[in-house]
Amino acid sequence: MIHYYRLSLQYKGTRYSGWQVQPDGKTVQGELNQALKKITKDEDVKSMGSGRTDAGVHALDQVVKIAIHLEINPENLLKALNSNLPEDIRVNSAAISDEFFMPTVHAKSKEYHYRFTCGRSVTAFQTEFIANQSFELDLEKMNKACKLLLGEHDFVNYFCEGTDVSSTVRSIFECEILVVKEVGMMPAHLMLRIVGSGFLKQMVRLIVGALWNVGRGKISLEDFTKSLGSPRGERMGAVVPPEGLYLARVNY
Amino acid sequence: MIHYYRLSLQYKGTRYSGWQVQPDGKTVQGELNQALKKITKDEDVKSMGSGRTDAGVHALDQVVKIAIHLEINPENLLKALNSNLPEDIRVNSAAISDEFFMPTVHAKSKEYHYRFTCGRSVTAFQTEFIANQSFELDLEKMNKACKLLLGEHDFVNYFCEGTDVSSTVRSIFECEILVVKEVGMMPAHLMLRIVGSGFLKQMVRLIVGALWNVGRGKISLEDFTKSLGSPRGERMGAVVPPEGLYLARVNY
Repeated sequence: MIHYYRLSLQYKGTRYSGWQVQPDGKTVQGELNQALKKITKDEDVKSMGSGRTDAGVHALDQVVKIAIHLEINPENLLKALNSNLPEDIRVNSAAISDEFFMPTVHAKSKEYHYRFTCGRSVTAFQTEFIANQSFELDLEKMNKACKLLLGEHDFVNYFCEGTDVSSTVRSIFECEILVVKEVGMMPAHLMLRIVGSGFLKQMVRLIVGALWNVGRGKISLEDFTKSLGSPRGERMGAVVPPEGLYLARVNY
Repeated sequence: MIHYYRLSLQYKGTRYSGWQVQPDGKTVQGELNQALKKITKDEDVKSMGSGRTDAGVHALDQVVKIAIHLEINPENLLKALNSNLPEDIRVNSAAISDEFFMPTVHAKSKEYHYRFTCGRSVTAFQTEFIANQSFELDLEKMNKACKLLLGEHDFVNYFCEGTDVSSTVRSIFECEILVVKEVGMMPAHLMLRIVGSGFLKQMVRLIVGALWNVGRGKISLEDFTKSLGSPRGERMGAVVPPEGLYLARVNY
């Protein structure tokens, strides 16, 4: 008999080639499956995340459904997993899951954070956690651009080609840039907080790349607005580095 | 002709066997000397820190005097060093130094921070930055113990044997435990902030070990007071892990 559990996972993505199991390369899902096999003493384990995260990208609350042959108290499952997973992957919570729960399809919205410093030297502590951008940025103008992102748009200019998707239309519910104060080892920095119905491959990192160019004055708010729809045109910015990105929450 | 410069360095100690150059093992001073040799194209470089930090211990402001044969604008020295040092060692500032400045002897006081979580599970992001202690702690009682540390004491019970020191008497000027709020990836935690005339080898980590035992109720405030003086008696606690410790400031 198969038993289903729902997990919330946090991980530091630095050492991994992303969430999804790959033929070669360490992945978060790969480590989770390994730990599950060890706990269940069974090779037949399945796991399904709410979505992929790229290499180097972190998660504070990745929702995962697992299917195993072992019946186990969720609290004991949590403890067993945290004893068998590497230190940079932790289980926040575990519960019994409905057999029909689909972490991907049933997600109503997702929240991502992107942390970055700007216009100052990088600190010794931020390299795996907070990206750097060496220019001074106009925060007010960037927050205006954030407001333009709200609502439904065709994000054809904000996704990585080569991925097969039925539609590039997504809705953004919340978007703002926050100032985060210094905390000892971590420097003061800026954080984009974005909540949307769903995100295409590299969409958040392309949005941040465009916002950086808005903040530097390389792109006008008018051009930014135009980019939020078809036809596919020039990219508004680069894919920013993965270390600043966090899958912060999946809402069901 | 020899030129002297004064640097402030920050480093993440995780990958290093401490500050001081060693015959084998990567050290922060070793990396600094390497970078200086590269910049000056000269094997004859000297560096002297304000004091040693142990393996895994971090620094936010380690003061270092260097002696090189190259005359260079301090701003350019800073840039050249930051280009040649590993990402987890950064130069905060550089200035021309008095020939007779001694980073060790001339330090009037030093400030250390020790960060730790307690009574909850460890997060995926804290392992190299914030230590964990699995018991619930009585913060009020610990802060009472912090007050008892103020003033001049013989710290014969709070130093690592085998080191040659002329006196184990030191003065503590400030000592308190602060509550630090959660910042996204970094969990809420406690931080000991301690300022003293100087610190013996592993003194801060032994003090924290004793404070944890005070907080757990394993040691009374009376016994703690007695431990702050000779004769050498039983240890009041373990040497706590290095990852929570930061050399935060050296005052001259």
